[in-house]
Parts: sequence; C-alpha cells; structure tokens
Amino acid sequence: MPHIALPEHLPGITGLLEYSRVTAEPIRQLTQFILRGENSLSPAERELIATIVSHQNECRFCTAAHTAAADLLLGENETCEVMKQDIDAAPVSDKMKALLKLAKQVQQGGKAVTAESIANAKAQGATHTEIHDTVLIAGLFCLYNRYVDGMATVAPADPQFYTGLGQRLVQYGYNRLPNGYDHLKKQAQPS
Amino acid sequence: MPHIALPEHLPGITGLLEYSRVTAEPIRQLTQFILRGENSLSPAERELIATIVSHQNECRFCTAAHTAAADLLLGENETCEVMKQDIDAAPVSDKMKALLKLAKQVQQGGKAVTAESIANAKAQGATHTEIHDTVLIAGLFCLYNRYVDGMATVAPADPQFYTGLGQRLVQYGYNRLPNGYDHLKKQAQPS
Repeated sequence: MPHIALPEHLPGITGLLEYSRVTAEPIRQLTQFILRGENSLSPAERELIATIVSHQNECRFCTAAHTAAADLLLGENETCEVMKQDIDAAPVSDKMKALLKLAKQVQQGGKAVTAESIANAKAQGATHTEIHDTVLIAGLFCLYNRYVDGMATVAPADPQFYTGLGQRLVQYGYNRLPNGYDHLKKQAQPS
Repeated sequence: MPHIALPEHLPGITGLLEYSRVTAEPIRQLTQFILRGENSLSPAERELIATIVSHQNECRFCTAAHTAAADLLLGENETCEVMKQDIDAAPVSDKMKALLKLAKQVQQGGKAVTAESIANAKAQGATHTEIHDTVLIAGLFCLYNRYVDGMATVAPADPQFYTGLGQRLVQYGYNRLPNGYDHLKKQAQPS
C-alpha cells in the first residue's frame, strides 16, 4: 500500500504523475525527449538502458513496464531477458553492450563510472552525445525507481497490465494523454 | 577532466546544462518548482534535503553548491555542517529530522525506505505532500549527482566559486538566465 493517498486505479508511476501534475509535466517532457526524441540510439536501445537500470534497482514496476516497451519495439522478448543476466550475451551491438555496462555503473553511482568503461564505449563507436544520453537516461531512471519504490506504489501482478502499458509507451510515448490513463486502463484490463 | 567535451568555463552541472539545453529545460523547470515553488517546506529546508542527498552520494560539486545555497538562506553555516555528521544533532525541527532521514533512505534506494521512517515523518507532522516532495527531491538529486559525477565534470577547489553559485541559486533560482552564466561567473570570479 502506498505511503501516501494515491489514485487507487493508477499503479506505479502512473498514480504519482497524476498526484503531482506540476512536477509530472517536466518529468514527462524530459523522458519523452531523452527516450523518444531524435537520437542516433533507437527508442528500443534507449528502452534497454531504462530496463537495465530499473532491473539493477530491483524496481518491479519500472522493469516490467520498460521491458514490455523494449520487447514491443524489438519485436521479440529475448534481448531483455538475456541482457538482465549477462550484457555480453545479449544480441545487441558492441556499442550497445558498452553503453549498457556504462548505465549499470551509473546505477551504482556517479563515482562508479570508470575511465575504462568510457574508453570502451568510445572504442566501440559511441559518440559524446550517446555517452551523455546514456548517463542521463540512467540517472533519470535512478530518480524514477526511487520515486516509485520510495512511495511504495503498487506493482500489479498481472503481466497483461505491463503489456498494455508497454503498448501505450510505444504508441503514445511519455506525454500525458488528454484523457489521462483511461485508454491505458482499457488496454490493461480488457472487458 | 570530463568524459565528453563540455564548455571549459562551466564546471559541474553548469556545463552539462549548456551542453544539452533541450534536456536541461525540463530539468530546470522541475528543480525550480520542487525547490522554489510554493510549499510548506521553506526553500532552506528543501536545500537541506538536496544537500544531504548530494553529501551521501559524495558529489563534491552538488554538495558544495547546495550547502552554499542552504547556508545563505539560513543565514548561518552550522546546520549543514552538523546535519552531514548527525541529523539528530542538527538545529532543525523534529519534522525536518524525520524528512532528512527519509531522504537518506531514498538516496540508498527506493526499497530502502522503511514504513517506520514514513510513520515517524507523519508522527512529526509531515503531510503527504511533504513526504512526496522529500522523496522526489531526493530522487532528483540522485539523478543530478550521477549526471555530474558520471560525466566526470570539474568541481572547482575555490570555495568562493560555490558562494557565488549559492548566491545565484538564492537570487535567481534554477531557471536559465538570459545571458547564460556570465552573471554567475562575475560573482564567482570577482575582478
């Protein structure tokens, strides 16, 4: 049960973003730009970064939601599963492996990032912008994961919920829908 | 030396916010609202939360900058120094002690927040909004600290720099100044 009174029908981050809309707006904008804006990393690759950080933070809601989004964007569910166990074994580019390892270091803390992991990312062709964006995405999900779990929000047990949420994130991104989450609810709980 | 090419005259977060202005804008908006917007916690109290989290993350730049801002807002430099060593010994209200302890848990991770620390905050009179805002501020500084140190930005050694930055944060808040940081530079490096 959440530590404060949140809308009961909106689990995880969704209730927090409705509880505090004024702070939600810039959080949504930042997320939309960094995960969906024009970028040499695909939306799927950026969702993988969000997923590995949420997984390392053991945030059940965020891990399930961004795994679902990444799976849908990739058209398969192997990459996320393998990546969570062993980045080197995941079917992604060497550049992405380097960036995912960098994201894992950021999850531990800013000071955990090594010169070696940066050099490795550059050697695999990562640009300065891609390194910057990886660190910022990892930092952003360290915020999200703490917000979601620090408030003890509810994480639905039904996998169908996250499939619906993933579809919403793929189709509409991170901006607030005019009708709130009614659309998502319909997807997540088919009548 | 930073891991990517950042404006040399802008240390710490300041160079990152200029490097990536599109992501900087919502980050600034969120910070301005949560640290300076209308709130039952004073700007000084919210700067204390930013300070304790940055201190726990061992982020030298952010700790020095927000200590300077808190000191200026409080009109003394005892509270920050004592708080970093022992929250219970700091000359703040019992409610603030509970919220600072909550922020320290959020710094460790969302799952580190205990029902006891939430119950304690409520028992000391913290509202749901104050608990929410404390968790969000703590999460935001977990982002900032990782961004600043994950990119290996420069933290000036000169204490005068942070006094200037603190003055800027107290006087103008977190919005981007029309003339960039020229004003801040003049404060920080008096001719």
